Amino acid sequence: MAAFPSNLPVLTVAITGAAGQIGYSLAPLIAQGLMFGPHQKVALRLLDLGTAQDALSGVRMELLDCALPLLHSVDITADPHVAFTGADAAVLCGAFPRRPGMERQDLLLTNAGIFKQQGRVIRDAAAAHCRVLVVGNPANTNALILATSGGLNPAHVSALTRLDHNRAVGLIAARLGPTGAAHRQAVIWGNHSATQVPDVESLSSAAAPLSADDAAYFHGEFIPQVQQRGAEVMKLRGLSSALSAAKAIVDHMRDWILGSEGRVVSMAVPSAGNPYGVPAGLIYSFPVTCAAGVWHFAPGAVLTEDIKRRMDASTAELVEERTLAGL
Amino acid sequence: MAAFPSNLPVLTVAITGAAGQIGYSLAPLIAQGLMFGPHQKVALRLLDLGTAQDALSGVRMELLDCALPLLHSVDITADPHVAFTGADAAVLCGAFPRRPGMERQDLLLTNAGIFKQQGRVIRDAAAAHCRVLVVGNPANTNALILATSGGLNPAHVSALTRLDHNRAVGLIAARLGPTGAAHRQAVIWGNHSATQVPDVESLSSAAAPLSADDAAYFHGEFIPQVQQRGAEVMKLRGLSSALSAAKAIVDHMRDWILGSEGRVVSMAVPSAGNPYGVPAGLIYSFPVTCAAGVWHFAPGAVLTEDIKRRMDASTAELVEERTLAGL
Repeated sequence: MAAFPSNLPVLTVAITGAAGQIGYSLAPLIAQGLMFGPHQKVALRLLDLGTAQDALSGVRMELLDCALPLLHSVDITADPHVAFTGADAAVLCGAFPRRPGMERQDLLLTNAGIFKQQGRVIRDAAAAHCRVLVVGNPANTNALILATSGGLNPAHVSALTRLDHNRAVGLIAARLGPTGAAHRQAVIWGNHSATQVPDVESLSSAAAPLSADDAAYFHGEFIPQVQQRGAEVMKLRGLSSALSAAKAIVDHMRDWILGSEGRVVSMAVPSAGNPYGVPAGLIYSFPVTCAAGVWHFAPGAVLTEDIKRRMDASTAELVEERTLAGL
Repeated sequence: MAAFPSNLPVLTVAITGAAGQIGYSLAPLIAQGLMFGPHQKVALRLLDLGTAQDALSGVRMELLDCALPLLHSVDITADPHVAFTGADAAVLCGAFPRRPGMERQDLLLTNAGIFKQQGRVIRDAAAAHCRVLVVGNPANTNALILATSGGLNPAHVSALTRLDHNRAVGLIAARLGPTGAAHRQAVIWGNHSATQVPDVESLSSAAAPLSADDAAYFHGEFIPQVQQRGAEVMKLRGLSSALSAAKAIVDHMRDWILGSEGRVVSMAVPSAGNPYGVPAGLIYSFPVTCAAGVWHFAPGAVLTEDIKRRMDASTAELVEERTLAGL
């Protein structure tokens, strides 16, 4: 795998669904250097539907009003070719949302159509080194379609589970405090869905052992707490997570491209060659380390039977999604 | 004036109206170190109405889900005493909005009541060095009431015109490019309202002279463009400026407390002692420099008759607002 180039005078990043809440929280973080570092100039390409172009103009105006020295330019468009041509990175937030009464297969097929088309445009028009993060749900399967039907380099395509990972990190700190949380590694395995497997033990052999109470919490309540966190935020705010999603997207891309500096993070990536027995042919969340745009599976996780069983359930869900999506 | 302390283990910052759009964009920027620097731990106190506590819980949850190492804690409350006790800094976004059919005096008096009360709580409960930024409109007059009726140290109270300033900087760069914009100093004089005076000449003697075309633009179209920019964003997005307001708030507080490093920025501050003939007893936007929580009027601006006339109109508006607010 080739490293991501480190000497781009301007790094062009395309964001789809950019008129949405996540785009609104995300764009200023990128333009302030939090994703690609404090010295990297960035050009933003904001893509959304034709009906959202006025809203995008407003976002563009506000970004220019921030007077940010790293922000080279902001282009807005409804045309994927305009958005992706020459892009060095792409964050795909846009996806067709599930509507009341919509069958799961209809949702998967509708999104398959969108991501297949976007994959082809990225292959034809983006930089060969373009790194792609899929955020729009069902994110893992959308990413699989993007890579497979679009014909992209699979090592350049990933899906977001960093939000789940960060939620787990936050809950670990809240439960154990800084001392107890030291060396305790959060991992998200599997699908970015209710079958995801939040795990605080498999890669934590260097941490202090959990008390019986804490072990009961992390084997019990903690798991649905992470899995259902998005629904909880939605219930309280009346809106889905945006600021925390934007932060997770920044973390994912920064660690991938600038390097995770030895830290282990969770990314949904192609499963081929993984050391944990997950079948090839899926986009599955694993513990990874990254340097210069290249990720590697983090080895050494010791899986309990319970974690394995949960991982298998997430695998089964992803296999079913892949079938329903027509792959 | 005493410097702001530089050795706080945790810096506590209160945000009012925190469940609103600006609060949602602002809180993550503070928690990521953009306001008080990359090594300063922060405790957030989020204040809003009782009816907004669920929404605030959701914001709190999302902030914890960002797993930010600088974020010491997030407290949410509807009680100003809880929000302001021990606060080192306060950003007052909450204000009573103008409703259809509401008289200007009613708006001013309603807000006067709110800011008078908050000023007293800040005086009684916040740290003596607490620096306060008023964002909620009418911001200058709300800040004046806060300082005067609340009995705060006037040097510790300011209102936001940095958003207008940043808008001017962005428009200067768009018009003149980086070379033409060099040494061209943006200044916002007066009230954060349609009478504000965006000025690109008074402090720009070191810049290359403007062409006749550019001079015509900056004396003409540019002025309403800055003054009406908020309304323009509102028309396009259907929502008021939030991301650019949050960025401006961060810039204002960072420059004030960490220092503007010799750069001249616009802040609305008490007019007493200013070198530009603005009467004392107002909160008026001036060019200033800052270091360690202390601001100074930037001297040396050479005012044209046109700028003076516009500044007088903004002064007259502020005097009228002060009277209507009952001061």
